[in-house]
Amino acid sequence: MAIGELGTYPHATGAAAAVVSKHEEAQDLVFWSGWFCPYVQRAWIVLEERGIPYQYKEVNPYKKEQHFLDINPKGLVPAVEYKGRALYESLVICEFLEEAYPEHKPSLLPSDPVERAYARIWIDFIAKSVIPAFMRLMMTQEPDKQQEALGEFVKALATLAEKIQGPFFLGEQFSLVDVAVAPWIMRDYVIAENRGFHREAVGPKWKQYAETIEARDSVKSVMSEREKYADIYARYLKNEANSVAGIAFRAGRPLQ
Amino acid sequence: MAIGELGTYPHATGAAAAVVSKHEEAQDLVFWSGWFCPYVQRAWIVLEERGIPYQYKEVNPYKKEQHFLDINPKGLVPAVEYKGRALYESLVICEFLEEAYPEHKPSLLPSDPVERAYARIWIDFIAKSVIPAFMRLMMTQEPDKQQEALGEFVKALATLAEKIQGPFFLGEQFSLVDVAVAPWIMRDYVIAENRGFHREAVGPKWKQYAETIEARDSVKSVMSEREKYADIYARYLKNEANSVAGIAFRAGRPLQ
Repeated sequence: MAIGELGTYPHATGAAAAVVSKHEEAQDLVFWSGWFCPYVQRAWIVLEERGIPYQYKEVNPYKKEQHFLDINPKGLVPAVEYKGRALYESLVICEFLEEAYPEHKPSLLPSDPVERAYARIWIDFIAKSVIPAFMRLMMTQEPDKQQEALGEFVKALATLAEKIQGPFFLGEQFSLVDVAVAPWIMRDYVIAENRGFHREAVGPKWKQYAETIEARDSVKSVMSEREKYADIYARYLKNEANSVAGIAFRAGRPLQ
Repeated sequence: MAIGELGTYPHATGAAAAVVSKHEEAQDLVFWSGWFCPYVQRAWIVLEERGIPYQYKEVNPYKKEQHFLDINPKGLVPAVEYKGRALYESLVICEFLEEAYPEHKPSLLPSDPVERAYARIWIDFIAKSVIPAFMRLMMTQEPDKQQEALGEFVKALATLAEKIQGPFFLGEQFSLVDVAVAPWIMRDYVIAENRGFHREAVGPKWKQYAETIEARDSVKSVMSEREKYADIYARYLKNEANSVAGIAFRAGRPLQ
């Protein structure tokens, strides 16, 4: 997510603020964050879930630190700095954290190569189908097109839901598939309140899964107070957001 | 790639046909292919590069084998079948082949976690920026928009070129970054002949890199005779292709 959508609140609040306060000390791994960004939350959930030591740094979009821009010229978050190298792209960071910290349990990918590939197929589906449908639903203005977008979003979730083994996507093991979709489950109230979405419309299996995900400690721990997101999503709902996704949507380009 | 674009030629020809003829025997790994598909070629290059035993199966889009549809209901290629499980998505398959066959050298990802993440960042860039720009350039009809698309494509390649360490993207090691872009380098003559693209417009570094890639044995070995692709690309150039990409382009949806 490109930064430029900040509302009134420059810092995490609520549960996320408590987590931030525990990660102020210098560490080998620096986590460059934007508290409001769902892509950031993917990497953040992994850090919390696996107990990886990290230093939290909030990127102020209006005053980016020179060091951050030096290592990461596009200024994208999430980014991690590890031994002087900057890495970005949320799913790349999630896999990096698996590979760089194998001693931190639980691993969030299965050990069997076929099962790992299966997990990645569905992570890819979330990236290419679920999230773009969510964004279209949020940003579309015309009522008939909103209905169409709602149908597409529910259909994408139903496709995912069909494969849930329960309680988590891959069964007993909480995995990167759950991480990949969790931040959007935590935001589905935005489209419930404004676009007529109901978890029940996807089916009981999805509703139960969504409730399991939102009850996960690591997921809850990276969320700020709900009302603090309101200014940001108000702009998406009016299709006035100037994030990468907002600009791409208006240009008819991929939302990714 | 969804199948449905087959021209006159139902089978691989030229170099690729010779490779196919060596992979007819039953193996634990079945490679479900479409000879014309660039995404298929990514997985195929990895199989050839690393000497992994596989059985080649050409999927006839007009008469798909029941067994293929049983294991892979959407009928997408590339797909691999491994111990009864079907896997699809070209980049997922490439990583699977790394993980399932660690004894087959060379590995196409660095061993260091930071370097692996760096490779994945650029694989992601190819998927999200280079290939969509290629497809837009090929399918756009209006001359002024073609010029714009050409500029975007050259810019995407220049961004990639800037990071080439030479002779391959990551330096001495041929890697999945090279694999990810190779099939489109092998097809850039289509936009050179029809859309005014020149490798020189990207710069000498790109030209040299493209020539290095197209001289790689594994890359050459999966190409059919150039004229056999003509019918297929004629439809893309007229924006009449009915592949997933063709349909997505006309709907203003992500090309992925």
